[in-house]
Amino acid sequence: MIYLTRKCEFSASHVYHNPEMSEEENRRVFGKCNNPNGHGHNYTLEVTVKGEADRQTGFVMDLAELKAILAREVMDAMDHRHLNREVPEFATRIPTTENIAVAIWERIEPKLKHARLHRVRLYESEDLYADYYGE
Amino acid sequence: MIYLTRKCEFSASHVYHNPEMSEEENRRVFGKCNNPNGHGHNYTLEVTVKGEADRQTGFVMDLAELKAILAREVMDAMDHRHLNREVPEFATRIPTTENIAVAIWERIEPKLKHARLHRVRLYESEDLYADYYGE
Amino acid sequence: MIYLTRKCEFSASHVYHNPEMSEEENRRVFGKCNNPNGHGHNYTLEVTVKGEADRQTGFVMDLAELKAILAREVMDAMDHRHLNREVPEFATRIPTTENIAVAIWERIEPKLKHARLHRVRLYESEDLYADYYGE
Amino acid sequence: MIYLTRKCEFSASHVYHNPEMSEEENRRVFGKCNNPNGHGHNYTLEVTVKGEADRQTGFVMDLAELKAILAREVMDAMDHRHLNREVPEFATRIPTTENIAVAIWERIEPKLKHARLHRVRLYESEDLYADYYGE
Amino acid sequence: MIYLTRKCEFSASHVYHNPEMSEEENRRVFGKCNNPNGHGHNYTLEVTVKGEADRQTGFVMDLAELKAILAREVMDAMDHRHLNREVPEFATRIPTTENIAVAIWERIEPKLKHARLHRVRLYESEDLYADYYGE
Amino acid sequence: MIYLTRKCEFSASHVYHNPEMSEEENRRVFGKCNNPNGHGHNYTLEVTVKGEADRQTGFVMDLAELKAILAREVMDAMDHRHLNREVPEFATRIPTTENIAVAIWERIEPKLKHARLHRVRLYESEDLYADYYGE
Repeated sequence: MIYLTRKCEFSASHVYHNPEMSEEENRRVFGKCNNPNGHGHNYTLEVTVKGEADRQTGFVMDLAELKAILAREVMDAMDHRHLNREVPEFATRIPTTENIAVAIWERIEPKLKHARLHRVRLYESEDLYADYYGE
Repeated sequence: MIYLTRKCEFSASHVYHNPEMSEEENRRVFGKCNNPNGHGHNYTLEVTVKGEADRQTGFVMDLAELKAILAREVMDAMDHRHLNREVPEFATRIPTTENIAVAIWERIEPKLKHARLHRVRLYESEDLYADYYGE
Repeated sequence: MIYLTRKCEFSASHVYHNPEMSEEENRRVFGKCNNPNGHGHNYTLEVTVKGEADRQTGFVMDLAELKAILAREVMDAMDHRHLNREVPEFATRIPTTENIAVAIWERIEPKLKHARLHRVRLYESEDLYADYYGE
Repeated sequence: MIYLTRKCEFSASHVYHNPEMSEEENRRVFGKCNNPNGHGHNYTLEVTVKGEADRQTGFVMDLAELKAILAREVMDAMDHRHLNREVPEFATRIPTTENIAVAIWERIEPKLKHARLHRVRLYESEDLYADYYGE
Repeated sequence: MIYLTRKCEFSASHVYHNPEMSEEENRRVFGKCNNPNGHGHNYTLEVTVKGEADRQTGFVMDLAELKAILAREVMDAMDHRHLNREVPEFATRIPTTENIAVAIWERIEPKLKHARLHRVRLYESEDLYADYYGE
Repeated sequence: MIYLTRKCEFSASHVYHNPEMSEEENRRVFGKCNNPNGHGHNYTLEVTVKGEADRQTGFVMDLAELKAILAREVMDAMDHRHLNREVPEFATRIPTTENIAVAIWERIEPKLKHARLHRVRLYESEDLYADYYGE
C-alpha cells in the first residue's frame, strides 16, 4: 500500500458568522473573522490517496485524473470565490478550516475510482491546518 | 550601511474592478479577480530598512519600534479586512499587489525616525510579489 | 473526527551532556552538541488536537484558547531560554528533540478540555523532527 | 514510542517507459515523463524511525549512524544518477515516486538495528510525494 | 517604478562536460555533475519585470501575458527536457545555473513589450541560485 | 556579470548584553535577548559572489572552493558555538544579526580570489534577516 499526496492552492474569502448567535456572541467567538466584509486566504490543499502501485505504470493512480478531479471539484468551485456566498456547502455550515476540509472530502471521495481517498489536509496559513480522514 | 528586513503576514480580501471600464472589459482584463464577491490572500510583507548599526546596541533600528509601526499602520488597517471597502487608499486605486506595496510604503515611510525605508516587498502568494523602493 | 494543527516557533539554547558518562564518552556520543557553552535552535512546534467540529462554531477547539495554553506552557517557559538551566524537566533529562517533544506533551495534555491532544511534532531544524503521540 | 524523522535531498534523472507497452501507449500514459532523453528532479527524502528514547542519550537512534546508512544506501546510489540506468531496482521497475519510495525502504530497513523504520516519504517536488510504511 | 516577480518551476536533466577538456579534467572540475548519464533538478525560476503601475489596471504588466511568454519560451523548451540534448543554447554552452539564467534572459527579454526585464533568478536547488541582470 | 548565491545553515547561541549600559537599561533595550543564560537560533546564511561565467566551466566560481571557505571561516567558527564566548569578534561587539553579517563579510571577503563578494545575507529566523554589501 502506497500513499500518494498531491498539493494544490486556491485563494478564497470567507466570513465566520452564525445567524443563530447574537451579534455580540458572534464578535466574541469569531473576533476579526466575523468582519462582515470578509477576509481571505491562500489555502493549500493536500489530497492523499492510497492503493497499490500498478504493475504496468508504477502509479497508485493517474495523476492527470487526480488533477482533473481537483480542478473540477475544488478549484473551479472554490478558487477566487467567496466561500459563504458561492459554495453551497457553506450556505449553512461556517467555512472554518475544519468544515472546508470535510466539504472537500465529500466532493472528492465519490469521484475516485482506482485509489481510495485517505486524507484531506487543508492549510489556511502556514501555521494552521486541518486533517480529515473521512471518519 | 546595513539593510534589515522584517517579515509579517496578513490576510485580506479584495476585488479587481475599475468603474471607468465596462463590465465586459473588467472581466476580460481582470478575469477571476473581477468576481464581485471578492476573494482573498495571505499576504506576506517584507519591510527593509537601512542605516548603520548603532554602536551601543548593534541594531540598525529597534525591532520593537518597527513591529509597533507595522502593527499600527499595516496589520490594524489591513489584516482580516476587505481592502477595497475598508482601506481608504483603495477606494480609488485598485488593490493590486503593486498598488498595495506602494500604499504600505506611503504609510510606513513617514513614521521611521532612526532608519530609512529601503524597500517594501509584498507577496500575494509564493509565486508573485512586488517590490517598491519609493521612486 | 477532525485533527487541527497549530504551529508556533521558539528559540532556545541547550547542551547535550550526561553526567553519568565520562567526558570522553560525552564527546564521542554527542559530538558538537556537547559544547559546554551551549548552542541553539529555532524550534518549530506543531501541536495537533482532535475532536469533532462544534456545530455552533465549526471549530474543533477555540484557537485563542489553544494559543493561550501554548503561550503559557511552552513559549513563556522555553522561548529565549537555556533549556538545561531554565526548564525543570531538563535538569535531569537531556533536552534532545525527542525529550523536548515529550516534555511539551506532558505540559499541554492536562490543560486541554474541549479537544484531545493527538500529536506533538517538534522540529529542531528543517531537517530533523520528532513526533510523540503520548504512548 | 517516539518517531524521529531525518530529511535529506538528492538530485537524479529518470524516464518513465514500460517496454511491455507500445510507444504510443507509453506516450499517452506517461506524457512528458516519457521523453527518452530523461528529465530530473531534486528529490527530498524523509526517513522516519521509531523507538524509545534511550535513557543514557535521550536519542531514539544515533543520528550519525542514520546519516551513514542514508549516505551509503541512498545518496551514493542515487544522487547525481540516472535512476533507470544506474540503480539496479529500476532496470525492471519504473522509477515513479511510489516505486522509488519502496526501493528506499527495502534498502534502509535491513540496516537499522536500534530503531525500526516507520515510514519513507519521498517528495518528487513540493507538490507531490509518496509515503510507504512497509506494508 | 515597481518591480514585479513571477515564479515558476520546471524539471530538467543535464550533464556538465566540456569537450575541450580531457576526461580526467572534466571529472576533476565537474565531479558528480560530469556523470554522462545525466542527473536532474527541479529548477525554480523567478522573473522580475519593472515598470510603472498602469493607471487603468494597477498592473506593471498583464500577468497572463507574462505567463504565456514563460510558457512558450521557457516551459515548453526546458520542462521535462535534457538541457544539453534538447535546448539549442546548450549544444555549445555548459548548462550551469549561471548559463541557464543567461539563456532564459535572452529568450524572454525580446518578447516583453509593456515592461522591461529586470532580473532572471534561477534556483538549481534551495541552496544555490544565480541572478542575471542583462549586463 | 552573474551573481551566484550559496546558502548554508548553522546553529549557535548568543546573548545581547552591553557592559557599558546598566542592568536595567540592558533589560529594557534587549528584552528577552538579554537572558544571561543565552538562547539560540538556526541561522541561514546566503553568500552572493559576482563575476563573469568562466568560458571553460560555465561557473562564476568553483562551488567546492566556496564551500571550503564557508566551512573554514564560518561553519567551523560559528556552528554549534556560543557566539559571545567563542567567536573573537563578539568579545566586544554584540552578536546581533547585523553585526554577525558584517563579521562574516570580513571573514570571507579576503579569501575570495576568482569572484568578488557581493552580499552577505543572514537570517536569524524566517522573519528577520540582515544584508551587508561591504560598504
